[in-house]
Amino acid sequence: MPRWEPDARERLVRAALDLFTEQGYDNTTVAQIAERAGLTKSTFFRHFPDKREVLAAGQDTLCRLLADGIAAAPGSATPLEAVAAALDTAMTAFAPGRRDLGAKVEAVIAASSELQERDALKQVGLAAAMTEALLKRGVPDPAASLAAGFGVLAFQRAFARWSDPANQQELGELARQSLRELQAASIALS
Amino acid sequence: MPRWEPDARERLVRAALDLFTEQGYDNTTVAQIAERAGLTKSTFFRHFPDKREVLAAGQDTLCRLLADGIAAAPGSATPLEAVAAALDTAMTAFAPGRRDLGAKVEAVIAASSELQERDALKQVGLAAAMTEALLKRGVPDPAASLAAGFGVLAFQRAFARWSDPANQQELGELARQSLRELQAASIALS
Repeated sequence: MPRWEPDARERLVRAALDLFTEQGYDNTTVAQIAERAGLTKSTFFRHFPDKREVLAAGQDTLCRLLADGIAAAPGSATPLEAVAAALDTAMTAFAPGRRDLGAKVEAVIAASSELQERDALKQVGLAAAMTEALLKRGVPDPAASLAAGFGVLAFQRAFARWSDPANQQELGELARQSLRELQAASIALS
Repeated sequence: MPRWEPDARERLVRAALDLFTEQGYDNTTVAQIAERAGLTKSTFFRHFPDKREVLAAGQDTLCRLLADGIAAAPGSATPLEAVAAALDTAMTAFAPGRRDLGAKVEAVIAASSELQERDALKQVGLAAAMTEALLKRGVPDPAASLAAGFGVLAFQRAFARWSDPANQQELGELARQSLRELQAASIALS
């Protein structure tokens, strides 16, 4: 039976992020992350398979929230309306209290090719989750893949804005705003 | 001075693909790939850093061809016209003589999570190369990111069709066709 460690996961994420920021991703070990969090290495490994996965914590939750949001959108919703509803719900449920982490996460990823790889995988995973949920609603391909692509771009742009300490808007609001900008831009593509 | 090994790179790709197909990606070593290709391990490492990179061979070339194609499109071309021209040129220059590899590559990637990760990275890399080339043409963001996203989806769909042995169309033609389908689908998104 694992000991009861309140917020262990959150503490590990924050410790990893601080260490990656201070001394670089490559120079940071799992042992150091656990120590900084006041936890053991075995606790770390109950939560994450390796240090690379720490910053992807929550990807599965995010994928599930987005897919549920798309499934729950009204039957009359267009593909992009379903994506907008899903982003709004998922961002609001996912992000509260984590705003201070945003800018750190962005900086740490920008400094590590290994974390950039993990981030690429996350982008593709989010797109796949939304595509699948749209196909289940009866949206045909390639419309489903395209709408999911809009959703990923909206998420990325919203997250970058939200991570700016000067920005006061909520992540859900930023995601909707980004999606509207993408829709407007799409008209001028061809 | 490395010895002269005609087509070493191509032979390594084909050997790796055969071994991944026969015995699985995880069970295949660099030594086996080199042996099957009739080359030494050190020759392998002159061409690729590890076995994961073998199937990403050519990604840099593809990115360069796409970026050059976007840069070379007429000044009057819309963002998607520039992407279409780039895909057409890049696919035609990139793919000849490799059609027999397509289906094997698709099957091997589908069977390995490590290769799926590498493939995700490739998708994001292609998108970044096209986005950057579009920004250099003066296409603003988010239109540049969106058009690049269309380009990546068109490439993926075209490659999947081209890999079907029953298909007789050229990859460039399939890419243009896929891009037209994406444009048509985009109208019904919102």
